[in-house]
Amino acid sequence: MADGMTDAALLLRADAGGIARLTLNRPAARNGLSLALMRELRTALAAVAADAAVRVVLLDGKGPAFCAGHDLREITAHFADADGGHRFFEEAMAECAGLMQAITALPQPVIAVVEGVATAAGCQLVATADLAVAGEGARFCTPGVDIGLFCSTPAVALSRAVPRKPAMEMLLTGMMIGAAEAQRIGLVNRVVPAGAALSEAEALAGHIAARSAHAVRLGKRSFHAQVEQPLPEAYRIATATMIENLLSEDAAEGIRAFLEKRPPQWRDR
Amino acid sequence: MADGMTDAALLLRADAGGIARLTLNRPAARNGLSLALMRELRTALAAVAADAAVRVVLLDGKGPAFCAGHDLREITAHFADADGGHRFFEEAMAECAGLMQAITALPQPVIAVVEGVATAAGCQLVATADLAVAGEGARFCTPGVDIGLFCSTPAVALSRAVPRKPAMEMLLTGMMIGAAEAQRIGLVNRVVPAGAALSEAEALAGHIAARSAHAVRLGKRSFHAQVEQPLPEAYRIATATMIENLLSEDAAEGIRAFLEKRPPQWRDR
Amino acid sequence: MADGMTDAALLLRADAGGIARLTLNRPAARNGLSLALMRELRTALAAVAADAAVRVVLLDGKGPAFCAGHDLREITAHFADADGGHRFFEEAMAECAGLMQAITALPQPVIAVVEGVATAAGCQLVATADLAVAGEGARFCTPGVDIGLFCSTPAVALSRAVPRKPAMEMLLTGMMIGAAEAQRIGLVNRVVPAGAALSEAEALAGHIAARSAHAVRLGKRSFHAQVEQPLPEAYRIATATMIENLLSEDAAEGIRAFLEKRPPQWRDR
Repeated sequence: MADGMTDAALLLRADAGGIARLTLNRPAARNGLSLALMRELRTALAAVAADAAVRVVLLDGKGPAFCAGHDLREITAHFADADGGHRFFEEAMAECAGLMQAITALPQPVIAVVEGVATAAGCQLVATADLAVAGEGARFCTPGVDIGLFCSTPAVALSRAVPRKPAMEMLLTGMMIGAAEAQRIGLVNRVVPAGAALSEAEALAGHIAARSAHAVRLGKRSFHAQVEQPLPEAYRIATATMIENLLSEDAAEGIRAFLEKRPPQWRDR
Repeated sequence: MADGMTDAALLLRADAGGIARLTLNRPAARNGLSLALMRELRTALAAVAADAAVRVVLLDGKGPAFCAGHDLREITAHFADADGGHRFFEEAMAECAGLMQAITALPQPVIAVVEGVATAAGCQLVATADLAVAGEGARFCTPGVDIGLFCSTPAVALSRAVPRKPAMEMLLTGMMIGAAEAQRIGLVNRVVPAGAALSEAEALAGHIAARSAHAVRLGKRSFHAQVEQPLPEAYRIATATMIENLLSEDAAEGIRAFLEKRPPQWRDR
Repeated sequence: MADGMTDAALLLRADAGGIARLTLNRPAARNGLSLALMRELRTALAAVAADAAVRVVLLDGKGPAFCAGHDLREITAHFADADGGHRFFEEAMAECAGLMQAITALPQPVIAVVEGVATAAGCQLVATADLAVAGEGARFCTPGVDIGLFCSTPAVALSRAVPRKPAMEMLLTGMMIGAAEAQRIGLVNRVVPAGAALSEAEALAGHIAARSAHAVRLGKRSFHAQVEQPLPEAYRIATATMIENLLSEDAAEGIRAFLEKRPPQWRDR
């Protein structure tokens, strides 16, 4: 089978119009996050971060599932290690935590595109993304409790995206929620007919990609830097960003174009 | 009257199937949180914490009200103290803050079961519980402003369960909200027909109690430990939990049972 | 034109029944926050803070717009400064951050009254206010990205009022949301027919103004002091407030009046 034959096969990247689409490509394993796939994704994000042509990232999954979380067969295999898997689990969990924080730290906005199930660390990817678009058939859960493995790391992202009680209900029960409920609690931004998540996300990404990439990068960085700080420190961070942004060529051009009622020409540095 | 005759009468405990049901038992006082009742509840929580047979806790109230908050007659009586009540208020407020934090720190999940009104510190109990189920007739308010006593300690729990503007509206106006609105803002998880909150909560508790108690305990502790930390520290905490959980017998059994498509046999340590 | 002729003309203040109504009064500029207007508003808030007769503040805008954010013509004019506007931008952004934090620090609750658009820093005023009432025709956006200037300082207030994904969607797309959606995500408390926001806000303010001003001030201060603190510190702050409040004359009067089923007579110190 293709899966695992080459590193590249685990993750697909396709760029168009300033939008990089990263597609988890282990459909037979419901896009389970093997250590190799997590590394591929993190490497791809590092490449995207350094790529000035990319203005927005889409993250989706090949096949009927978005992502079924960690690869349980891989984990089981390491129970037979001399240390019971300890070293592997540390490696895999560090990679996972690094991957999620790399999405938050990525200069470009990341939009999760969800059709089918987003489970455990797959749900964590959705919660971590800056925006999420779901097809009506999308479903979300953190079912670790069903297998004796509470979704404690997905909880980090989930508890920052949705209020505590709905987060705790998902974590303690492992029950699936549908796309409408996911939108209600704040886990996804938009719900569209099944199969239409990608086109909706592309339209959303296109809208953002037409804005100043410089301003978007400054803004995303500032958002995450301030959001968990006390109010005075948050304003200190955001005010410094605002001044830097005001002194940029894109702001000067954007404001003038607005007052002159013409489209702006971004410099995009 | 029974209330106050014995300490035990203030609070009822009934255990079944790994679920401990704690019932506030001052129906004539609408389950007002006298100092004695708060101490009873805290003592009961300490006993539950040490009881390996308990997997989930239900918290409900005897009679038509869930809980009407602090006992105003007890407070009024202490206005006549030589110090105007200062020492008693310090004692009662310390007990209350300790009680609420004991619910959060309890190893087992706590589900509030609400029929009738949950007022002031009663509403705080609901906001503090990990999950909450309400009957359609349940109502919630923080009406301290009506009596010149802003619900500042209930605000601690309320502002962590629901967004700031709905929290402030409840606190500044003292107005009642119904069960549907409480669900909309995140104060309760589920709304069921009046009178059905207990059976719904029992079903929910039974679902959780059938999972690995070890995993649930690790997960609840990690959730609260990380939720107010900056993202990198949150991931440090949750990753350590995840590795500990992966190395547990319950996770090994749970993952193998899942892959072998059979029910798991929890060790539950 | 009247605008700018006198400082007083930029902002109107009208007091009645313990309610101070502050009205942004640059309708021709859609109440854009020029540096002069921000200073006027901050000065007015300082006067209100020291005015024991004021129990609640309403903040609205003259004309069809609530507030269109910073004054872009003023900003553009400073691009021609020797330093490209650097010094002016620092001054204006410091004033803006100071103004927003002055609303949070104001002893009295602030209710935003929104008809028409609340844009960028105008949306930030709504997010910063303790409560917000909107007419059905009200609309909200943070459209800085459209002009190359990400709404990084509005993001501070927005990300504390609403969940992260809706906040990010508004910030990254600049798209308008209506009053119903603003209520759904937590940006406004109440939506009323177009044109009725002021009367609804006055009724809400009247309800709050009839309560103990002393208790409301203690409570608002405690709310903001605790909301971004870790749980134990939050309870330490709120418990100290509660004891101070319990020892106040208004609490003694309020509790006694409640038990005696008569209206309280506030001392209000």
